Amino acid sequence: MGGAVSKRKNPVILQNFVDECGGENAVIPIIATATKVQEIGEQYVKLFKKMGAKKVSIVNIQKRSDCLKEESISKFLKATGIFITGGNQLRLSTILGGTPVAQLIRRLNADGVHVAGTSAGAAILSEHMISGGRSGETPTPRSVSLTPGLGLTNSVVIDQHFRQRDRLGRLLAAVAYNPFLIGIGIDEDTAVFIKHDHTFEVVGSGAVTVVDPSHIKHSTMSIARGSDAVNLVDIKLHVLAEGASYNLDTKEATVPEPQQ
Amino acid sequence: MGGAVSKRKNPVILQNFVDECGGENAVIPIIATATKVQEIGEQYVKLFKKMGAKKVSIVNIQKRSDCLKEESISKFLKATGIFITGGNQLRLSTILGGTPVAQLIRRLNADGVHVAGTSAGAAILSEHMISGGRSGETPTPRSVSLTPGLGLTNSVVIDQHFRQRDRLGRLLAAVAYNPFLIGIGIDEDTAVFIKHDHTFEVVGSGAVTVVDPSHIKHSTMSIARGSDAVNLVDIKLHVLAEGASYNLDTKEATVPEPQQ
Repeated sequence: MGGAVSKRKNPVILQNFVDECGGENAVIPIIATATKVQEIGEQYVKLFKKMGAKKVSIVNIQKRSDCLKEESISKFLKATGIFITGGNQLRLSTILGGTPVAQLIRRLNADGVHVAGTSAGAAILSEHMISGGRSGETPTPRSVSLTPGLGLTNSVVIDQHFRQRDRLGRLLAAVAYNPFLIGIGIDEDTAVFIKHDHTFEVVGSGAVTVVDPSHIKHSTMSIARGSDAVNLVDIKLHVLAEGASYNLDTKEATVPEPQQ
Repeated sequence: MGGAVSKRKNPVILQNFVDECGGENAVIPIIATATKVQEIGEQYVKLFKKMGAKKVSIVNIQKRSDCLKEESISKFLKATGIFITGGNQLRLSTILGGTPVAQLIRRLNADGVHVAGTSAGAAILSEHMISGGRSGETPTPRSVSLTPGLGLTNSVVIDQHFRQRDRLGRLLAAVAYNPFLIGIGIDEDTAVFIKHDHTFEVVGSGAVTVVDPSHIKHSTMSIARGSDAVNLVDIKLHVLAEGASYNLDTKEATVPEPQQ
């Protein structure tokens, strides 16, 4: 989810998530570690309960030692979905990284448990995470900082608040560093739902920008220095709105037939 | 291999590699893409042949389209070992990344084919690669640049020319970003041989510095800015010389019994 997800007017993204997790049978632990604002986690508890989920609770993780506690681990045991709030993604990687909680999230996700996050909580999901960077600029070697994330997928790098904060430059820089990555830039109040078959569908009021560098013909990323603008020739770009989908294996986008 | 590997006096590291690959039956394609100095690849061809390997050849990859050529792919087909020279690791990630050659190297390695590299060729091997950074400084958020590598392992991050270029600060910064990583700093003329059982052994005239952040108690990496020095409390550090080994799963070092 690209951040600033609608919680009131038309909360279709969050309702979709709760429904995917089993509706009233959903068991959803919430990780609010990215933020120090305690109310944020509590807002999601209320919201998910209002949407029908009966078992929703915050996992109290403020420091690494909390990730070793039986009290934290036990919250995940019957989870049908895990939700990670926004905040600072480096709090997530530095506090959760390498702990039993991070290992548990990876294992549960591999077993089919849904893992969703908004803003920083979306950034942390992939193996390669954008932890910082510049907005509104042409891609340069310094446009983006990459650090290791939770590693639920290694084939994509996720950026959020995408159009609102003008982050195309830093997403292009990220994929240019190693063109095996597909870049996914998610607008606010917008989400992708990645399925087992490596396709994802777009939901929400904004768009998702996909940058596919796999057929890049020319790149100066290896020789550019600091804030030099880089040449990147033949990057494929898609802008996908609600209902469109994308296959991460074949790298093909599908848009719904227009309604008559 | 940590760079500047002895090729003349006592080339124990390279001889070990050739022996592991089957000695005279070894089939070794060499990737010299990291450097533009053509002689470097040719030096290794001569050297490996002198060490007994009969089938050694350079894979001619100067640009991404070379990675699609039948001529390049065919060099890997009966490989028993793959060798990647030093140079600029961003040339490796930007030219090989996401191509059939990168996929082939990953698949062959998963099937048991040895993959070795020196300097930039060592850095590229892991999923998280140090592509740049500062020498001789206290760890700060800006000490290190991480970019995606070949991904033969995701549990370690490798630095090289380690003691010679005073790179402890940037290796500490790398592992502090997400403490699931184990940092391996390899001195010049020194190597680690990682085995199937996730242990590695040290060979060569220098040492290997291991930084294990898994029990870190306190870190300010998530709040430090730019060139702020960071607090990192309770990082475990090992210095391992020839004959010592390390288990990446249990995170325990073993040193040989002293000779009487």
